[in-house]
This record gives sequence, structure tokens and C-alpha cells, in this order.
Amino acid sequence: MAKEVTNKEENYSLWYNNLVMKADLAENSAVRGCMVIKPYGYAIWEKMQAALDKMFKDTGHVNAYFPLFIPKSFLSKEAEHVEGFAKECAVVTHHRLMNSPDGKGLVVDPAAKLEEELVIRPTSETIIWNTYKNWITSYRDLPLLCNQWANVVRWEMRTRLFLRTAEFLWQEGHTAHATEQEAIEETERMVNIYARFAREFMAMPVIVGSKTATERFAGAIDTLCIEAMMQDGKALQSGTSHFLGQNFAKAFDVQFTGKDGKLDYVWATSWGVSTRLIGALIMAHSDNNGLVLPPKLAPIQVVLVPIFKGEEELNTMREQLLKVKAELEAAGISVKLDDRDNLRSGYKFAEWELKGVPVRIAIGPRDMQNGALEIARRDTLEKQVIPMADAAAYVTDLLQSIQENIYNKALAFREKNTFVVDNYEEFKTRIEDGGFFLCHWDGTAETEEKIKEETKATIRCIPFDMPSEPGKCMLTGQPSAHRVVFARAY
Amino acid sequence: MAKEVTNKEENYSLWYNNLVMKADLAENSAVRGCMVIKPYGYAIWEKMQAALDKMFKDTGHVNAYFPLFIPKSFLSKEAEHVEGFAKECAVVTHHRLMNSPDGKGLVVDPAAKLEEELVIRPTSETIIWNTYKNWITSYRDLPLLCNQWANVVRWEMRTRLFLRTAEFLWQEGHTAHATEQEAIEETERMVNIYARFAREFMAMPVIVGSKTATERFAGAIDTLCIEAMMQDGKALQSGTSHFLGQNFAKAFDVQFTGKDGKLDYVWATSWGVSTRLIGALIMAHSDNNGLVLPPKLAPIQVVLVPIFKGEEELNTMREQLLKVKAELEAAGISVKLDDRDNLRSGYKFAEWELKGVPVRIAIGPRDMQNGALEIARRDTLEKQVIPMADAAAYVTDLLQSIQENIYNKALAFREKNTFVVDNYEEFKTRIEDGGFFLCHWDGTAETEEKIKEETKATIRCIPFDMPSEPGKCMLTGQPSAHRVVFARAY
Repeated sequence: MAKEVTNKEENYSLWYNNLVMKADLAENSAVRGCMVIKPYGYAIWEKMQAALDKMFKDTGHVNAYFPLFIPKSFLSKEAEHVEGFAKECAVVTHHRLMNSPDGKGLVVDPAAKLEEELVIRPTSETIIWNTYKNWITSYRDLPLLCNQWANVVRWEMRTRLFLRTAEFLWQEGHTAHATEQEAIEETERMVNIYARFAREFMAMPVIVGSKTATERFAGAIDTLCIEAMMQDGKALQSGTSHFLGQNFAKAFDVQFTGKDGKLDYVWATSWGVSTRLIGALIMAHSDNNGLVLPPKLAPIQVVLVPIFKGEEELNTMREQLLKVKAELEAAGISVKLDDRDNLRSGYKFAEWELKGVPVRIAIGPRDMQNGALEIARRDTLEKQVIPMADAAAYVTDLLQSIQENIYNKALAFREKNTFVVDNYEEFKTRIEDGGFFLCHWDGTAETEEKIKEETKATIRCIPFDMPSEPGKCMLTGQPSAHRVVFARAY
Repeated sequence: MAKEVTNKEENYSLWYNNLVMKADLAENSAVRGCMVIKPYGYAIWEKMQAALDKMFKDTGHVNAYFPLFIPKSFLSKEAEHVEGFAKECAVVTHHRLMNSPDGKGLVVDPAAKLEEELVIRPTSETIIWNTYKNWITSYRDLPLLCNQWANVVRWEMRTRLFLRTAEFLWQEGHTAHATEQEAIEETERMVNIYARFAREFMAMPVIVGSKTATERFAGAIDTLCIEAMMQDGKALQSGTSHFLGQNFAKAFDVQFTGKDGKLDYVWATSWGVSTRLIGALIMAHSDNNGLVLPPKLAPIQVVLVPIFKGEEELNTMREQLLKVKAELEAAGISVKLDDRDNLRSGYKFAEWELKGVPVRIAIGPRDMQNGALEIARRDTLEKQVIPMADAAAYVTDLLQSIQENIYNKALAFREKNTFVVDNYEEFKTRIEDGGFFLCHWDGTAETEEKIKEETKATIRCIPFDMPSEPGKCMLTGQPSAHRVVFARAY
């Protein structure tokens, strides 16, 4: 089974597609650019949702739900916003089908044309700020801290499962504040929550920083982001948090009376992560045997594989198998007992490796007699025989250890592939091999654009924790205050 | 505040709309027929989702996600299905907007017309069965038990918040089975789960039964349902479970090889409940003071209202308030401390009554000294003073008691308003006052249609637990084996 997965060193892109399909995470649907998220993939999303939702609620946010449809005219109200999204909008123009008068089947009923076309939300700032107008009148209504879990549609021409699909699932937070300072703090709070989620749950190190003007969200004053390195050395933007200033408040006329009795426009943020994170998770950790899932997000943390010949032998083992399972479950571990009788255990081992289950426990009849278990960890493929009675304690520690190990491995990989480069010719050569490049840049969009044209590398972010280090732009020689992160990106 | 709610005896429909709006559950959006679900309303939906999702998973179902879009041609593949949904489909015809060449703003780009129109899913049988075709080849792939939490769109002409909206949120289960018997059992299992959810969580008694052929889901062999009585005596269909036979398997050519090596079409079910349940919840229990929420679904179970003059007095009370809050929370109760200093406590009492919080605790400075609390229950509005030290135990019992009481009250109301009627003239008169009518019917669609035309009453269901009782159809005098439930319905 795992043999059918292309080696990532041979063809990284094909390796990724193989994993997504063969590990039963997702597949392309009959609708161009839209994916079906299969149960195993969706279970990872549910784990991500649960962890993020708790973090949002712990910081005072509440969930709500806004319409899927956005009247066309709303999009136009914020000039940069419409510029950014108009070209990739799915547009609803009619509300009825009918049987064709010529008997040629189902057609759009021309009599059911909408007065104003509706766009499927590519993001919800416009419909939400049109709603907030009625919710906010006084400083007492602020801050307003809403999040929405929803599907959105951006009509992308080149799609890839999880990474870039026409429809995707995400959460979008939309907050309203009385002061600029509070909104900026919220923007930072949320990008830091994303960074913590990436590190603690996804075991994925990320760089936190701000985007350049060119790479900002359409309509934002500032876009903060987390950027992760994939195993091919490319960057993947994994979450963004936008300071929107008063742009949307002005576009939708949302004003409030302050404590001082004066009217002012409301300050806004928005922030989101999507099912793209599943793509990041796969590419950050997996290997040529299949997925490597961090225990905190693995739908199945332990698979228990009995080794038996015939149903009778399985039945003699069943009581003890269920006891081990129950002990692990009592320790809060999710366990799958794979007692299928039509597959060899070698096949099962390969299948669960492919699916990235962090811990595999194998038990044969002799182990039963000896009160022993064989435990294999997915990240290093190491095996260990332990006393059956120690299973719960051992596995609890092991899951923690795997979670840390894959984080450390990914961090070491990133560090190994992060380079300080000052010479543009050197940059142009080395960018071909991937990696993050810490370089000086003169701060202009022109330079950024030229570097992108010549190397396909973009400025992923201006990191928050980059030390002040005066230097010269690698392209123009103009002064630069600190380095930024260049990379090719997904 | 509650005074602004119309009495339900005066205008039931306006009372309902008032409650939804004033209790901050939902509002109409700028998009015709689509609602905004506000945080307080969405929190109820989250509680419903959590309870239902657990019940689905406990019975072996897994979640997945299928595309929002359905190619127009898919709809046509099942003849009855397309007949049922074609007239209310939102249709995507283009994938791009552009600036109008005449400078008149944003228009649909005619060059971006889709080859085949896409319908926003009104329900997902077609796209899912087109997908299942690739997932099912052998009996070993069955049963396939998937559920999806999603938004769907049905372009309704007359909409009402929660009860009937163009876009709504729901779950839709789609299962595939090797035998007819297993599929029928699944259909029954799921309608019984809905009934249990309605009774245990919503505190709402329901009648479980099957729909007549006229009222079936488009494409189903049999539709099972739960029907609840609202306080105006009208019925509300609250959940449906469909036995689809082999209709969709045949339409999408989904066959499997059985244990015997023979090819056969797969047997199917689908089942769903939606945000309509929130409408049912409101109308089943609420009164002229506002919502009455069952404790198991209330976003806030207890509101703690300190009675104080000025910030200083509040501060002297705060430590003890937080202690009471912590004790309740430790007992698993969700608590809101309402320490707003700009509102009178009378105003707060009315507001939390309007929002249906099951238990209100008021504490004044004298109560503090006496170590006492005043507890008011929302369902009966009764008050009781209890020792502060007993709060957690008392409230735990009280919440249970409220949950039972509102179920019993709703059940008593339904029983009082359920009538056995044999004379059609009597039926025609009495149906005007609402209620469920147990009547004999000859089993024909013609009779059903005539009664509907003349009385606006429909057959809500043929209940499962109705005793066999031969009789004569109230309209035609033809023989009938047992009574069915007639009512006017939402």
C-alpha cells in the first residue's frame, strides 16, 4: 500500500497528492476545483476546530452565522476589497430551473432572474459590516467579537486538494473596537493564537510577522501572518490576521458614540484559518511511508493490531485486547482495534502507517502469554516491547514524546534550511533549492516585484522577532533596517 | 423590555417574530430570505449540534464534507427528486465579475459563463451518491454511514426566521447498506434518535410516524418524521428520516458485490434536522415574558444579578459573587455574572427573562450578610430564598426539575389539544381552533388533497404507536385500518 506512494524526493507534488488520496483524506469532486473531504480528513478538521474554537472562546469571542450570499453592490463599497475578489466570484443569477420547452431537459428559467446578482461569499467583511451597522451605536456595544465557521468560494483556476480549492471551509473572525489601539492589539492577539495553535497542536513551527503592502489582504491596513516551511523548502501561509482600520466602517457607515459623546467610525479586524491547514499538516511532517500526524490532532491515536490465525484464536485474545483498549481509553487516548479477519497484519501495519496513526500496538498469542505488547511509534518507526500492565502510562508518555519530537524535527529542518544571504546572485542560485532566505530589502514594491519576477520568490513576512540590523537591499543596495523572509510559496 | 413583546394570545405570529428579534436570536439580513443567526441564537445551535453529533457518533456515523455546488445535470438523474427541488434552486451561472465597460460599476463578466450551471445544494443526495459510486465496490465497504453539517439553500418565496429561510444550516446523514432490511432499520434508528433528542434535550414531546405518499421527500420510498405541537395548536415537522430504496443507487449506478459474489444496487437512507429546530424550541415553550429555554440547551443556565448601589458596594460583594459563580461552574453549570453598572436590576431581570435563562439568582447586600440567595425559576417564575452554601446542589436539582417540568407542560398541552373526531363537519369547525386530530382516512391521495383544500389541514403522520382500530374515513366513509394525525402545519 505505502509502496504506491511516490517518494517525496522524486516528485514532491505527486507524493503530496498520493498521500491525500491514499490516506483517505480528500478527493476531487465532480465539480471543478471543489473537493470532497472524506471522513478521515474531516476528523482532523474537527480536531482542529475544537482546539481553535476553545482558544477563541477563551479570549472572549462568540460564534454567529451570516448569509452565504453577498449582494453584488456590497462588494463594490470598499474599493480595494472588490479589486481583490471580483475576479474569482461565483455568481448566482437565477433562482429557478425549469424543463426546457424544447424537451431538452433542465434549463435555467429566464423568468427567475434575480434583480441583483448574488455572489457566494469569498470572505464576509461586506455582509458582516452591513449587519454590524445595526448592532453598534454606542461604545457600550464594543468590542464586538464574532467568529463564524463557514464555507467560502474563490474561483481559483489552478486548484490543489486542501491547499487551494474553489470551495473551502474556514473560520473568519470579525471584530469591532472603539479605538485603533484595541483593534491593533486584537489583530496581534489572534495571529499569536494561530501561532500557538500551529506550534502546540500541529507541531509546526511558524514565523510570525507582517505582510508587505503588496501581499496584504484586499482592504486591510496591515496583514499579520504565520508562515511555515514545508519539506520541499517552500513556504505555506497558514493563517492571517488583518487590521482593517476604519475602512469597512466607513464603507458601511458604522459609527458609534464614544464615552465623550462624540461620533466616530469603528475600528475593525478580521482573521482566518482554513482547511488549508490540513495541507500544511501533511507537508510539514509526513514521509515516504505516509502521513505522520501529531498526536493532538490524530483522529486515531493508537491502533491495536492483534496477530492471529483464524477466528477462534482471535476470540481467545479478545477479552485481553478489549482490556488493553479500555485502559488506554480510560487514560483519554483514542484507540482503534483492527480485528479485520480478511487482511494480513503486514498489510494492516502499512495501512496505519500510511494513515499516520502515532502509535501501533501489535499483540500475538505469545505476547498474550508473556503479558507483553509490541509498541511501534510512527514518527521514528522504532519498536519496543513493554509489559502489558504498563500500556496506559507508557503510551501517554509516548504520545507526548512524539508530539514534541515531530515539532523539534520540523524546527531543525527549518533552521537547517534558513539562510542569511546578502548577495543577489547567490540568492538567485540558492532559491532554486528551496528554503527561507533572510535578506535585506529596500522596502519598495518595485524591488519586491522585480525579485518575484526573476526568482518566483516573495517576501513571506517581515518577522516580529527579527533583530534590528541595518544593511543594504540585496537588489538595489538601498538602505534596509532589518532582514525579511524571502521564499517560494504555495 | 418584555413589554415590547406582543402577547401570544393576541397575535401569535407577531409574538414569535418579536421573541426571535428581541431575544437576539436572529434577524433578517440584507439578502432576501436569508437570516443572520446572532451569537445567542447560534449558541443554542451549537448546543444542539453537540448533542446530536454525539448521538450520531455513538451509533457509528462519521462526518464528512461534500461540495456546495451540484452540477445541474446531477439533479435530473432522479426523476422525482428534480421535480421536488428544481423550482427553488439558486443557480450559479458565472465565475467572475468585471467593471462595466460603460463605467456603470460591477457587472457579471459574460466571458466567464460556466459551461454547465451549478446549483447551490438544496440537499446533497445527488452529489453524494455520485461520490459513493467510487467508494463502494464490495459488501465490505458497507454500511457506509456519513453525516454532513452544512448550509443548504431552497429559494422559498415566503420565509420566516428559523422556520423557513432560503439558506439554513442543517445536518444531513447519507447512508448506504447491503440490504433493504438494514436500510429500513437505519431509517427507523435515526428518526428515533431525533425523537429522543426532541424529548430529552428540547423538552419537546413529538409524535413519530411515517408520512403519506403525498408528503414524502422527493425521491424517497418512505419518509419517517417527528411532529411537534406548537402553542397555537399547529404542527411543526421537526426532523425527517428517509428510506430511499435503491432509487439513488440506480440513478448514479452504485452497485456492490455481495458475499455471494453477485452484483446488486446499494440501499440508501438520508435524514436531517435543521436550524428550524430553534423555531420549534421557541414556539414550544416560550411565554409572554420571553423565551423559556430547556436547561440542557440554554447557552446560559444561571444568571447571577447583584443588587447594588454604586461601584463601591459592588466591589465589596464581588468576592462572594465570584465564589458562588465558581461553585456553580464546578458543578458543571454555565453561569453569567451580570455586573453591568448602567442598568437597574429590574431591567436586567426582564432582559434575562426575555432571553429565557432558566435560573436567576439575585443577591443584595443584606442577602450577603445573611448568607442567602434569592432564586427565581424562569418556567414558573417562582422565587425561593435559600442558604448560599446550598446553591450548587439546589440549582443542579432545580435545572433538572425545570427540564422535566417544561416537557410535562408541553405534553399536557398537546394532550389537551389532541382530539378524536369522526365527523367531517365537526372536524372542519374544530380545526379552526388548532390542535391534532386523530381521524380515519381512506388512504387515498385524493381524499387527503380534498381535506387539505377545504381545511388547510394535512396529514402530519401515520403514527407508529397508533393502535389498530378499524373505522371509516371521515370524508368518504371508505374503510380505514387506524387513525392518522391531521393538523394545520408550519
